[in-house]
Amino acid sequence: MTTIADSLANAIERQIASGAYKAGDKLPSLRELAQLHGYAKNTVVAAFELLVSRGLVEPRRGSGYFVCARPSAPGPAEEDAGSLGRAMDIVWLMREQLKTEPDAIAVGDGFPPVEWLADVRLDKYHPKVVRTGLGALFRYGSRFGYAPLRDHLVRKLADFGIGAEPRQIVLTHGANEAMDIVIRYFVPPGGKVLVDDPGYYPLFGKLKLAGAQVLGVPRLADGPDLEALERLLVAERPRLFFTQSIAHNPTGSDISPAKAFRVLQLAQKHDLLIVENDPLADFKPTALPRLAALDQLERTIYIGSFSKSFSAALRVGFIACGADLASDLADLKALIHVSSSEYAERTVDVILSEGHYQRHLNRLQTRLGEATRNAIKLLESVDAEVFARSPQSLYVWAALPGVADSLAFAKELLPRKIVMAPGRIFAVDSTQVSRWSRFNVGAMADPRFAKALRTTLRRIGQG
Amino acid sequence: MTTIADSLANAIERQIASGAYKAGDKLPSLRELAQLHGYAKNTVVAAFELLVSRGLVEPRRGSGYFVCARPSAPGPAEEDAGSLGRAMDIVWLMREQLKTEPDAIAVGDGFPPVEWLADVRLDKYHPKVVRTGLGALFRYGSRFGYAPLRDHLVRKLADFGIGAEPRQIVLTHGANEAMDIVIRYFVPPGGKVLVDDPGYYPLFGKLKLAGAQVLGVPRLADGPDLEALERLLVAERPRLFFTQSIAHNPTGSDISPAKAFRVLQLAQKHDLLIVENDPLADFKPTALPRLAALDQLERTIYIGSFSKSFSAALRVGFIACGADLASDLADLKALIHVSSSEYAERTVDVILSEGHYQRHLNRLQTRLGEATRNAIKLLESVDAEVFARSPQSLYVWAALPGVADSLAFAKELLPRKIVMAPGRIFAVDSTQVSRWSRFNVGAMADPRFAKALRTTLRRIGQG
Repeated sequence: MTTIADSLANAIERQIASGAYKAGDKLPSLRELAQLHGYAKNTVVAAFELLVSRGLVEPRRGSGYFVCARPSAPGPAEEDAGSLGRAMDIVWLMREQLKTEPDAIAVGDGFPPVEWLADVRLDKYHPKVVRTGLGALFRYGSRFGYAPLRDHLVRKLADFGIGAEPRQIVLTHGANEAMDIVIRYFVPPGGKVLVDDPGYYPLFGKLKLAGAQVLGVPRLADGPDLEALERLLVAERPRLFFTQSIAHNPTGSDISPAKAFRVLQLAQKHDLLIVENDPLADFKPTALPRLAALDQLERTIYIGSFSKSFSAALRVGFIACGADLASDLADLKALIHVSSSEYAERTVDVILSEGHYQRHLNRLQTRLGEATRNAIKLLESVDAEVFARSPQSLYVWAALPGVADSLAFAKELLPRKIVMAPGRIFAVDSTQVSRWSRFNVGAMADPRFAKALRTTLRRIGQG
Repeated sequence: MTTIADSLANAIERQIASGAYKAGDKLPSLRELAQLHGYAKNTVVAAFELLVSRGLVEPRRGSGYFVCARPSAPGPAEEDAGSLGRAMDIVWLMREQLKTEPDAIAVGDGFPPVEWLADVRLDKYHPKVVRTGLGALFRYGSRFGYAPLRDHLVRKLADFGIGAEPRQIVLTHGANEAMDIVIRYFVPPGGKVLVDDPGYYPLFGKLKLAGAQVLGVPRLADGPDLEALERLLVAERPRLFFTQSIAHNPTGSDISPAKAFRVLQLAQKHDLLIVENDPLADFKPTALPRLAALDQLERTIYIGSFSKSFSAALRVGFIACGADLASDLADLKALIHVSSSEYAERTVDVILSEGHYQRHLNRLQTRLGEATRNAIKLLESVDAEVFARSPQSLYVWAALPGVADSLAFAKELLPRKIVMAPGRIFAVDSTQVSRWSRFNVGAMADPRFAKALRTTLRRIGQG
């Protein structure tokens, strides 16, 4: 009996250590665990008591067992920040902060709150995934990726007004691999590449790794700064421009239709290819003016993802582009990785096929709209300057009154376990002081945040 | 009724097109499909009849419905060879041949026969995978990969005599990503890298993509040619040597203990790092003298995979190396891909945990031993020259009598739907004529192969 309880406790401990259960999560009930594993109930009770004695879990009267906040001691040695030394210090600092403070309020987080996604728990779909023929999955998949999922994406892109055939779609190991493949295909060492500034810092890291010269195009509330863009096009003759038209990270802004049209005109005039990264597509109305929808993948390469709208652990993303380029990129992917994971791709395909999924997206958008309104209301109540106001935006970019250096302000909030995303992280030149921060509207709903924000701003105002 | 039957037929057609069911596979029974989907039996019958009318499926008296060989017309346009033009012509030729001839005898294939793996069908393990906590998987995993799987690998490596801690293990998107990450970390453009010659051609492709100078170390039946290795070390001062000590692809040879020791002595003397790729580890006895086991990951980086021993569709591989390097490689992986797929990693972890898996490996090794003996017997019976004789080897490297150019011979066999792997594919200089071929011992068991081989050799002898 002791051994079974022990091994169950160990299994749950590993799940907690691995992040499968996070601080504050409720463990499955006694009855569920007993049924699942076929154990006697008092075996499960013994396992829970072991976990309580190890300080990992706490009982709450009448409502079950919950995962405790981990002590904020430094993490294990293997999770040290590493020493790659490729100008990513602030990024690693951010990650470490997020990792070692599991009960923190992650206002700087890039993800939606877990509870927004809880209705697409992967376990619910497994029986259906199995029925797609997993038993026959011994080999590599096609170099393009699982065909039924590509068919699905054709329909999804059509909803956005982007016409594509299945042979124009290459599935990848997440949107980040998609960017990496595009960079490796187009960017020689020293090659000049335009990016949104501020923008998506993991993209900057990949470009630096490829030895590219990264040139920032200032991002305004309605899209790229056209004058700066044209100046750079004339002076530097870059081949590529990576941009997020819709739900821009970090500013939360959407491109205006007029600006989208002008960007494409400039692209044509200066022979520029646009890589439109759209990881938050599922959070926004389909009708927004994506560059790829105006241009129909002539000069645009569209990158999509499922990481934010149901699970980043699957690692499934995709590229949509011209058919010849898609074939080349699929070759390049095959050369690097042989193939993407058909196992994960079948899972995504099953989830997209469910009527339930559309309802999930609808709920997600409703929740996001509400959270965005509340977030902007809170920021306005403290007289923050809000960069762009989108009705549904996971991120709000704002400058707080009296805060000249948002990194210094982030350090003020850290002892209160509030993790901010200061603007420098997202800048092409991360040595520049910034007064802006990226706010995750989901995380801002925690009332402790409003309180800490007000208290800290007041203290600064008096100082 | 027609629509349901139609949509079921379409679903099965897509599964056939995507390779989920291959030529000769038996479809699930009427009863299974009816139960699974909750359809009436005559709906399923109607769907089967539709598939028969489309020429995709054939009934066999008393035993169900089977997938037909696809007509050997050219594949759809999207599967064209692509135009990446990176000196991979022969490789793509090979792939295309394998793709458009599903009923071919793939003597050149790199994989074990599917029936050898059928007892680890992924679907069997799914309920257990679900229980590991998939429901909480919304975020990226650790940059090192799923911790319980790394713990597992520590034990697996210990079986090979390789001592490693979990923080020395980085999970990757297959062994090919592992190689790519190592290359991107160590190899600058123009950097000199040693490889086995003949060797693993996807590695050559990745090195060329990185702009490396690829230098071949001739592979002998007991390991690398030491004189050539030393000459290259002195003359070229390369930093890295990618090698397969055990179950070498394509020669099927294993390094001798004496040679393993000498290779490591040379590595120490010339400050060489060795990347030991071991994708067929599960097919061989654990006691063989891996370089990483002698050296304990001091100057060796060990790369492993699960693609050959249960499924390539999961895309899970790993790197084991020194702890500092592992941390750097995990950083680099995070920079490129954010993380590997915890979803797939949990699945591998569950499968490795099963007692059944060890039995699977035992069976696999027994089957392989038998197939190897038969393959060598057949090759000897036609007076082929066999390069190396290992008691268990998925590949046998042999030269056929009277065949000066194995590529020309491969073309002779193609009309008989026998796909060979001529030696040139595996050569660093693929323009050189080779009399050698790689034979897959699993595929050689098909009696049509022995017949075609004898007939063609006889015809050549008379010509």
